[in-house]
Amino acid sequence: MSINTLVAKIKEKGNPTVAGLDARAEYIPESILRRNFLLHGETLRAVAESMVAFNCGLIDALCDIVPAVKPQAAYYELLGSYGAMALKQTIDYAHAKGMYVIADIKRNDIGATASAYAEAYLGRTRVGDTEIAPYGCDCATVNGYLGTDGIEPFLKECRNRDKSIFVLVKTSNPSSGEFQNRDMEGAPLYARMAEMVAKWGAGLDAPCGYNQVGAVVGATYPEEQKVIRALLPKSYFLVPGYGAQGATAKDIANSFNSDGLGAIVNSSRGIMCAWKKTGNNGEDFREAARAEALRMRDDIVAAIR
Amino acid sequence: MSINTLVAKIKEKGNPTVAGLDARAEYIPESILRRNFLLHGETLRAVAESMVAFNCGLIDALCDIVPAVKPQAAYYELLGSYGAMALKQTIDYAHAKGMYVIADIKRNDIGATASAYAEAYLGRTRVGDTEIAPYGCDCATVNGYLGTDGIEPFLKECRNRDKSIFVLVKTSNPSSGEFQNRDMEGAPLYARMAEMVAKWGAGLDAPCGYNQVGAVVGATYPEEQKVIRALLPKSYFLVPGYGAQGATAKDIANSFNSDGLGAIVNSSRGIMCAWKKTGNNGEDFREAARAEALRMRDDIVAAIR
Repeated sequence: MSINTLVAKIKEKGNPTVAGLDARAEYIPESILRRNFLLHGETLRAVAESMVAFNCGLIDALCDIVPAVKPQAAYYELLGSYGAMALKQTIDYAHAKGMYVIADIKRNDIGATASAYAEAYLGRTRVGDTEIAPYGCDCATVNGYLGTDGIEPFLKECRNRDKSIFVLVKTSNPSSGEFQNRDMEGAPLYARMAEMVAKWGAGLDAPCGYNQVGAVVGATYPEEQKVIRALLPKSYFLVPGYGAQGATAKDIANSFNSDGLGAIVNSSRGIMCAWKKTGNNGEDFREAARAEALRMRDDIVAAIR
Repeated sequence: MSINTLVAKIKEKGNPTVAGLDARAEYIPESILRRNFLLHGETLRAVAESMVAFNCGLIDALCDIVPAVKPQAAYYELLGSYGAMALKQTIDYAHAKGMYVIADIKRNDIGATASAYAEAYLGRTRVGDTEIAPYGCDCATVNGYLGTDGIEPFLKECRNRDKSIFVLVKTSNPSSGEFQNRDMEGAPLYARMAEMVAKWGAGLDAPCGYNQVGAVVGATYPEEQKVIRALLPKSYFLVPGYGAQGATAKDIANSFNSDGLGAIVNSSRGIMCAWKKTGNNGEDFREAARAEALRMRDDIVAAIR
């Protein structure tokens, strides 16, 4: 599914947001965890199975109003091989429910190794005479510090399988400026990265008017959003930092184009942990997540109108 | 195990090299693959079990002469949950055989997420009242593009559990200069990254005279090695690019200090695929790997003397 599919889903639902599925055990309602501890003991498996149950509940509650999910690989890797299984099940379930899946992996490596990552998350790997898609996501985040030959294997999946990527340009964290905002031959590093994103995306246009190579641009940096928006008119932005990281809907308005498209705003903890604010011990985690997703949609749509 | 342990193992074996365990199916002898295809069909599991058998054979053949192994996460992720299991088994087997384990993951993310990665690969995660080390490596590679708050969770594992990290400074791939060699306020980006590595390593000194925060510096760039060596006298270098990527022993001499310490040179394909040059269909993969590891050791020791 290409960026075209993502844009179609955003338009259909009138909702330019993505739900992060990044559960630590603390974010999962006690009743789900308790059941799995009884079944599997205090093991990584128990947490992984709890995560799948929680994710499936969230996907059920969100799939008709939210276009995409973004599982963050770190929280699955924290659970070893059971976590890897939970990641695959989450991706498959989200696909079955019609959602676009963005693997937040921020991978980067030399060409040969980047090929293995690209095949793992976006493509296929040959096993004897069979071809298998290990994770089969629609899109992945990548880090461009290694330059073109580390990105090329991901571009190959964009070209051959209609996948898309988001390259880290200006990240949402407090210390992102330590490198990204320093001057590199007359422009900040993040702007130099944006120039490369434009180059990598050239020729990968989709019918929606955007190309398959987008940028990660933190909601927490409105000024940088404006600069990057101007440098990358045809790139979609993945915008983290709304909610738990402190950015408001007003802060992300600069990431959008005047047609109301061009960006998708992520919320992870805001949606996953919405149940913690209702005082019902998590029994209502689905309803709480849905209510927060609707609130966030309306908040953002109002700000970009 | 801290950088001190790595240095002790390097001295004990008189061998400043590390064996990369990055097997694609093509690198594994046919007889191992065939057996697992019969047992498990043409599945990711069959390749993952083949990889474990191959890795264990390599570790058996190398553990008395090579101080460390470096599994590259990408090739395990390519095999889904079975790959994650293969990674853990490889790490455990290498530890059982007394080797230092460097997880080549090049991870990077905002603080909260970087914590999950650091706990997954170097630390522990809490499950109910139990603490579990998901992978339990000694060391990991990281990417510093996000600045200090993305590195801090890894430094915490260095401080609290005596772990070590290698930060990408100048990578070995052909296009690494696209960003890393451009001028950032009067010095190349790789030098700015090296300055931060020095800052991150301050106060993390080990008795061996080096600190826990090292640098990845490509064997393919001898001039940059010299500059970075001067900027980071107390950091160990992880040096990829020898052999299959084209660098020779002479090219890596600048990564070492005058005491013959300060760097560990990686070879992955050179050692893993040594059996392809003997004409014996891989039956002798252990002997071929050992012979190549000894040749590489002597080649490098002669060049840095």
